[in-house]
Amino acid sequence: METTLPQTETHRVASRLQELCSTGRYMEALTELYGDDAVHVEAMEMPGTPRITKGKPALVKAAEQFAKTTKVYGGSVGTPLVNGDQFVCSMTIDCEHTEGPMAGKRMEMTEQCLYTVRQGKIVEAKFFYPTC
Amino acid sequence: METTLPQTETHRVASRLQELCSTGRYMEALTELYGDDAVHVEAMEMPGTPRITKGKPALVKAAEQFAKTTKVYGGSVGTPLVNGDQFVCSMTIDCEHTEGPMAGKRMEMTEQCLYTVRQGKIVEAKFFYPTC
Repeated sequence: METTLPQTETHRVASRLQELCSTGRYMEALTELYGDDAVHVEAMEMPGTPRITKGKPALVKAAEQFAKTTKVYGGSVGTPLVNGDQFVCSMTIDCEHTEGPMAGKRMEMTEQCLYTVRQGKIVEAKFFYPTC
Repeated sequence: METTLPQTETHRVASRLQELCSTGRYMEALTELYGDDAVHVEAMEMPGTPRITKGKPALVKAAEQFAKTTKVYGGSVGTPLVNGDQFVCSMTIDCEHTEGPMAGKRMEMTEQCLYTVRQGKIVEAKFFYPTC
């Protein structure tokens, strides 16, 4: 089997993120690949989620909350596309919230994710999806 | 017919870029929507195209060169997705170079484009596509 070797730190992080997230290992991705001061930038504020979340402890807490209140049926991560210290990939998730106003409603969501990598760690993830 | 009004400068620029580029009006998009110091960042250097092109005059020159040496059969621009002062959209182009080593070879290319908007003008466009 032929494989293409990752060429840069950005490629390495991108491949590993795809590997982990496409098998639902979101928390492992966060722990292993994120820098301490990493930032998540949502396209908009949502109930229980601010537009910007700063720092790994806050991101881990949010991921724990998500895991506790969401049933994940499946998902996918598209091939990451790298440009310098950034990469984009599409992500889909098929899930159902188990608490709150959206409880019991199964949803399929798709987003484009833009990651910035510095010194081998993700320092920012920015999410793009329809907001209106 | 119902329309959704653009909410911010970024939305306005994104909509107009989609409108112009989806009808092949690339030069008009450049002239109307780009700031004087705008930068294009390719994922890699290509024959005749540096990785980074700086300034509107250089971008206009590159677009003129592209128009002169490329036959465009069609293309599309996906719905722009906005996050703050940035937006992403997918672009496809079905074209054939009329000069150089690739002359006569019809190609369909797809890329994800990330635009940054400041004071109502595009200041950076970054392109993501497979490089290996």
